[in-house]
Amino acid sequence: MSEKRATVQIVSIGDELLIGQVVNTNASWMATLLTEKGFHVLKIITISDKSEEIFSILEEVSGRSDIVLITGGLGPTKDDTTKDVICRYFSSKLVFSEEVFSNIERLFYKRGISVSETNRKQAEFPDKATIIPNSIGTAPGLWLEQNNTLFVFMPGVPFEMKEMMGSKLIPLLSEKFHPDTFIFRTIHIQGIPESSLSDMLEKWERGLVSENLSLAYLPQPGILRLRISGTGSDKALLETKIQNKIEKLLKIIPDDIFGYDNDSLESVIGKLLMDRSATVSLAESCTGGYISHLMTSVPGSSKYFLGSLIAYSNEIKINELGIDKRIFRKEGAVSKEVVEQMATGILRKTGSDYSVATSGIAGPDGGSAEKPVGTIWIAVASHSGVFSQKYIFGKMRDVNIKRATATALNMLRKVILQVPGYNSGSEI
Amino acid sequence: MSEKRATVQIVSIGDELLIGQVVNTNASWMATLLTEKGFHVLKIITISDKSEEIFSILEEVSGRSDIVLITGGLGPTKDDTTKDVICRYFSSKLVFSEEVFSNIERLFYKRGISVSETNRKQAEFPDKATIIPNSIGTAPGLWLEQNNTLFVFMPGVPFEMKEMMGSKLIPLLSEKFHPDTFIFRTIHIQGIPESSLSDMLEKWERGLVSENLSLAYLPQPGILRLRISGTGSDKALLETKIQNKIEKLLKIIPDDIFGYDNDSLESVIGKLLMDRSATVSLAESCTGGYISHLMTSVPGSSKYFLGSLIAYSNEIKINELGIDKRIFRKEGAVSKEVVEQMATGILRKTGSDYSVATSGIAGPDGGSAEKPVGTIWIAVASHSGVFSQKYIFGKMRDVNIKRATATALNMLRKVILQVPGYNSGSEI
Repeated sequence: MSEKRATVQIVSIGDELLIGQVVNTNASWMATLLTEKGFHVLKIITISDKSEEIFSILEEVSGRSDIVLITGGLGPTKDDTTKDVICRYFSSKLVFSEEVFSNIERLFYKRGISVSETNRKQAEFPDKATIIPNSIGTAPGLWLEQNNTLFVFMPGVPFEMKEMMGSKLIPLLSEKFHPDTFIFRTIHIQGIPESSLSDMLEKWERGLVSENLSLAYLPQPGILRLRISGTGSDKALLETKIQNKIEKLLKIIPDDIFGYDNDSLESVIGKLLMDRSATVSLAESCTGGYISHLMTSVPGSSKYFLGSLIAYSNEIKINELGIDKRIFRKEGAVSKEVVEQMATGILRKTGSDYSVATSGIAGPDGGSAEKPVGTIWIAVASHSGVFSQKYIFGKMRDVNIKRATATALNMLRKVILQVPGYNSGSEI
Repeated sequence: MSEKRATVQIVSIGDELLIGQVVNTNASWMATLLTEKGFHVLKIITISDKSEEIFSILEEVSGRSDIVLITGGLGPTKDDTTKDVICRYFSSKLVFSEEVFSNIERLFYKRGISVSETNRKQAEFPDKATIIPNSIGTAPGLWLEQNNTLFVFMPGVPFEMKEMMGSKLIPLLSEKFHPDTFIFRTIHIQGIPESSLSDMLEKWERGLVSENLSLAYLPQPGILRLRISGTGSDKALLETKIQNKIEKLLKIIPDDIFGYDNDSLESVIGKLLMDRSATVSLAESCTGGYISHLMTSVPGSSKYFLGSLIAYSNEIKINELGIDKRIFRKEGAVSKEVVEQMATGILRKTGSDYSVATSGIAGPDGGSAEKPVGTIWIAVASHSGVFSQKYIFGKMRDVNIKRATATALNMLRKVILQVPGYNSGSEI
């Protein structure tokens, strides 16, 4: 199969990238999306925001790929000289855009801010450029063609760039270049370490190669994603091949796959609860609100998420969750007894159908010989009982919080689904 | 003052970087260290590991900077390609290096592995290159000079590259180039939009230019960072110049700067509370636990953070925080009255010295004509009263949660510091 993909060079503008203050995650995000959509990223170039540097990079990349994507240098302030450079390089001149200005006015009006002189200047655009609207920020993107290259300029603010690229630019590029079909599916797994999974999947992985499919392991704290991908002209055939491999994978690890593609533990749990018209509440100690944050980041979560108690101090644990003081003194906050009482306490208090509780030592300090940093108890309660497990993670606070959160959410998922071994909790 | 820093181009080799599977943290790490040591990074270029790409990038970067640092393509598997390219580009030939071979033998002996024929090939090096020993891996680095440019090749494995760069390469470069000092400071601001700040600082910014200092605006949801930087031979003078500009900035926006450099809102608030031996608790609705998560992500936060109630359902707001039911029905959950009662309710319940409450419509659904998506009330309570403000943000749930969180934390900071206008709350 010959290489038919349209080629892309990515140019990131920003002194903060060159002095190492900011890691260029924008470029990686763009490269991932472009690759997934069937484009071939040839080069990523990071340069300063000095106008002569921007001008010379335009000369350098021109004609060397079908597309050049440039981010940064389009904000409202004075470090943004890009528009002048565009005018010079593309022999264009700045004209006031009523459309861009009214978008700025609309955004500012909603935020209760008045429009300034700087904002009028922001609405000036090179006359040869086509504007790409920015639905969530004041600086739109733009594109121009020259020397058989499509030059696209986008703001560098990550969430504005991502929104613009996903909803406006990718459809535009796909229509212009009809890239070969690249298909991938991502499988989300919780609770199996990367090296163990790799051993378990050895035979299954060999099968992928003979079908011209590729596999990548993408680990995150507490979660492991597998990405199966393939390229070709027959989309339906590719989809079937990948689906067959997933069916085989499900036979090897039936209970640990919690979702696919854009699923997250919190969105999957949200659907499970909605399907059952069930509700949930949380009593978090060591996870400090991170489980609540993830659950409430799902649109519509107010339908099943009643609330949480972040019980950091011992007084709050005892007074608000009704923990037995003698047991608390005897076993300590990080114990099976206390985490189970936290889970049943919040269940009673909120009247939810399910509850989750965490209690542990996130670190970096606070450990002991008996309970080292990284020791974390997690409990899930429901009307049929309470189930708990102990984990020992590492020494890094942020990683421990994330691993405990993923583990707790997956435990809740398994209890809801009554996975064998997860419904045999003690009676409340 | 003329620019006297030695210039550097960084070239990262690796297909995994171009498909977005790996974020180029190596380049950021190198850029940070080089900048701190007084070198000027002009460009970061990421290319594929195909040999023709490597050859053509050598032609492209040659003569355009004093130094070119190339990472990747020197491991035991890809070795031959890069070394062949080097031989071709620098008209050199491969010779066996006894020194490199004995290092490989030493490492293998320690790991209990025997040396193979492939390893002998690994010890062959271009005869015009000077070897940079690798004390923790088998692939050494090397450097060559051509066209007034010093070309340095290093392995791409992060810990090997870092060790080599810190202990061998930086001393070598410093001796060769006697670099000038580069200094930067970052100023963190909350609550002023980028364009408004740009208007307010117009005169102050002009002053920077005449002092040969540079400025960059670095926005994040709800937070704006300013970076002032400068280069010169006199480090103390530079530090004073930058400090003077910060003093002048403090006169223009005395209350909105919350920190510098590695500070975060949550770490700054942590210090303020520790200094006062004060405690805090939260009643979060629309922010769903994100404020709690940030506060508890600070090591040692259990000393001042007592806990939170994430009151998502109306029942929990009313039952657990003692909200007046009639007021709740009349004003709705997203109102001045309810958010203030939430703040005073959690203060009473936990006995903390300060409390913060949020209630709003994070979106994407749930808005009305009177209270559109993005409407958010924030209250801060203390023993001396309760203070609240209303904000109208945008339509994106995740951005709204982040902006509301940054705004709420900064409001708490201002109340703790008794900033004028933030201590005139109503009596509890």
